[in-house]
Amino acid sequence: MDEQCNVCANICESGDQFEDTQESIHFRKVINTYRSYRPHSLRRLARTSEYLSSLPESHRQKLLKYQSHLEDVRNCIEQNATLMKEIIVDVSRMFENIEYPNCEKGDNCRNAVRPTTVDTEKTYSVLKQIVREWSADGINERKICFQPILNEINERFADRVKSEVSILVPGAGLGRLAYDIAVQGYTCQGNEYSLLMLFTSNFILNKCKGTDLFTIYPWIHQYHNNLFAVDQIKAVKFPDADPSAIPAGTNFSMAAGSFIEVYTNKNKWDCVATCFFIDTSHNVLAYVETIWNCLKPGGIWINFGPLLYHFADMPNENSIEPSYDILREAILSFGFEMAKEQTDVRCHYTQNFRAMLSYEYRSVFFVCIKPS
Amino acid sequence: MDEQCNVCANICESGDQFEDTQESIHFRKVINTYRSYRPHSLRRLARTSEYLSSLPESHRQKLLKYQSHLEDVRNCIEQNATLMKEIIVDVSRMFENIEYPNCEKGDNCRNAVRPTTVDTEKTYSVLKQIVREWSADGINERKICFQPILNEINERFADRVKSEVSILVPGAGLGRLAYDIAVQGYTCQGNEYSLLMLFTSNFILNKCKGTDLFTIYPWIHQYHNNLFAVDQIKAVKFPDADPSAIPAGTNFSMAAGSFIEVYTNKNKWDCVATCFFIDTSHNVLAYVETIWNCLKPGGIWINFGPLLYHFADMPNENSIEPSYDILREAILSFGFEMAKEQTDVRCHYTQNFRAMLSYEYRSVFFVCIKPS
Repeated sequence: MDEQCNVCANICESGDQFEDTQESIHFRKVINTYRSYRPHSLRRLARTSEYLSSLPESHRQKLLKYQSHLEDVRNCIEQNATLMKEIIVDVSRMFENIEYPNCEKGDNCRNAVRPTTVDTEKTYSVLKQIVREWSADGINERKICFQPILNEINERFADRVKSEVSILVPGAGLGRLAYDIAVQGYTCQGNEYSLLMLFTSNFILNKCKGTDLFTIYPWIHQYHNNLFAVDQIKAVKFPDADPSAIPAGTNFSMAAGSFIEVYTNKNKWDCVATCFFIDTSHNVLAYVETIWNCLKPGGIWINFGPLLYHFADMPNENSIEPSYDILREAILSFGFEMAKEQTDVRCHYTQNFRAMLSYEYRSVFFVCIKPS
Repeated sequence: MDEQCNVCANICESGDQFEDTQESIHFRKVINTYRSYRPHSLRRLARTSEYLSSLPESHRQKLLKYQSHLEDVRNCIEQNATLMKEIIVDVSRMFENIEYPNCEKGDNCRNAVRPTTVDTEKTYSVLKQIVREWSADGINERKICFQPILNEINERFADRVKSEVSILVPGAGLGRLAYDIAVQGYTCQGNEYSLLMLFTSNFILNKCKGTDLFTIYPWIHQYHNNLFAVDQIKAVKFPDADPSAIPAGTNFSMAAGSFIEVYTNKNKWDCVATCFFIDTSHNVLAYVETIWNCLKPGGIWINFGPLLYHFADMPNENSIEPSYDILREAILSFGFEMAKEQTDVRCHYTQNFRAMLSYEYRSVFFVCIKPS
């Protein structure tokens, strides 16, 4: 682990993703996923250029600006690829409690599994996630999704010493919500399963000292629904908040691993804050049960998000998808008391606001109390 | 062809989809796609039920309502399957100029290609398309997308005898826009490439005499983002307009085949109306050129839709995806004059309005004139 880290990261041993050899293979596969970004993205672009050059001369003459636009897209891909490289430098030492072979510095990583197309395209989501969590362009999304959670925490724990209030953020993504909580002085742990996210949050939280240090081109992979060509190549700077601004002595950490398997200690947390998280489960009741168990009596669960049910239509994946009314009943049957509830909270998630298509979620926001 | 048909349907010989043996294989494959709806949908449901029954008893007890909801979903699938059967009865005789083997009535269709999962799931889109085009629930979508086109036609051809105004609707889908034009007395032809759509539009336009004759459950395949369980099993009746209400003597037809290959006759149409169509091309300029050529001098092209570019991210498919500003320049360079133009027209496409996720398009509406 880098000695100047702001946020300690740990591999949690009970997470099955991180066990033994398999863990090591997975680690290297994710590194290779970042490395595959450049060739994969350039191949996609080349296919378009080739088809364009096969069109009738009369059509090509009408598309000269499009041809030059594709050159701009290529330059943006190259700049994103440079960032990807920076993200994976030193990840072999990002966890305090384990060290991996450093593929970037000559260790043998040849036997790593090759990422698939689907894997590689997850790096496109990472770029958009950076916009949502760590750029000025993401302010509106964060205001609607994170602010009600932050308000709730500040109201409910107003009479407590902040450093003595322990808050867990499962599905922490790139760590911004956890950071926003920790920077106020609360004891906060983000938990994330995806190494793709963890590599990037490690880069942001531990390597960025200052604001607007890096530039990405998050929308270049969206070839469709562009009103203007310049929309596709728009630059976005990050981070908009200084990750190293966390007050000295704050207890802020990131834990890698599966939420259900890591948080088996009972009555441990004052608050669990879930944002766009509960629908990432195979069995949402297993999440609810884990939250119920790990909360202290009197502890609160704050939730914001839709019910997209991540595994709903994936082949070979188990999934149940109860509607909100049914899920709500199940939550109450654990013993939770519903202290606040709001449906139809309209919000976006990694939305390109200039695009000719937007996805709007009608989220649920609720606060549940585990009785004392 | 059914002798009581309202709308004559023809296979256009120049469409490569419909040539010789390949045409016949494709025809039977699409019939099999409809037939695969029931087993495919029930398998998906059974997977959920099996996983549910493998969960801990304590979780299952909390999900009894969910279990009974899945039974409701099963009943809805059965009822949709009955409709699918009705759609494919007699399709072997739906085209005036060709007859296919009738698989439903004992002809040998064994050698037909089996539909893939992706094919089968296109039947889910057909259900949603019925809602958009032929149900009262689709009124708002049609008001925003179709009404500006209809208004434009009525304004621009106000001083002409309607039956002498010839209007072409490429990408006609289930034929509602073409019907809305024809029912006013204009000479109208809908053109559609997809047999899946053509089978269903044939069923609606030629077999339905009256309104609200059939019931479908269009949202049962959307297992996620349901606020209430009843939202998933909502019934929708169709058609909301009587397809047989077209005035006697109206020249209204549907033509099957590829737009670019069918409409090679020059200076033939007074108006081409495209709605959510131009982005279904590999090369959008080939569409623009075909529209330019087939319009009479002084003819008008009315367009509504986004630039989703159907083939943009499909493996093994060619595609160019110029942004609107670049496409606009290309359109003008053919010689078109832009008579009206509006961007950022917010609209939906087969949207389930009760869902916790909605897709909003920011469409372009424009009217172009081919100078006299």
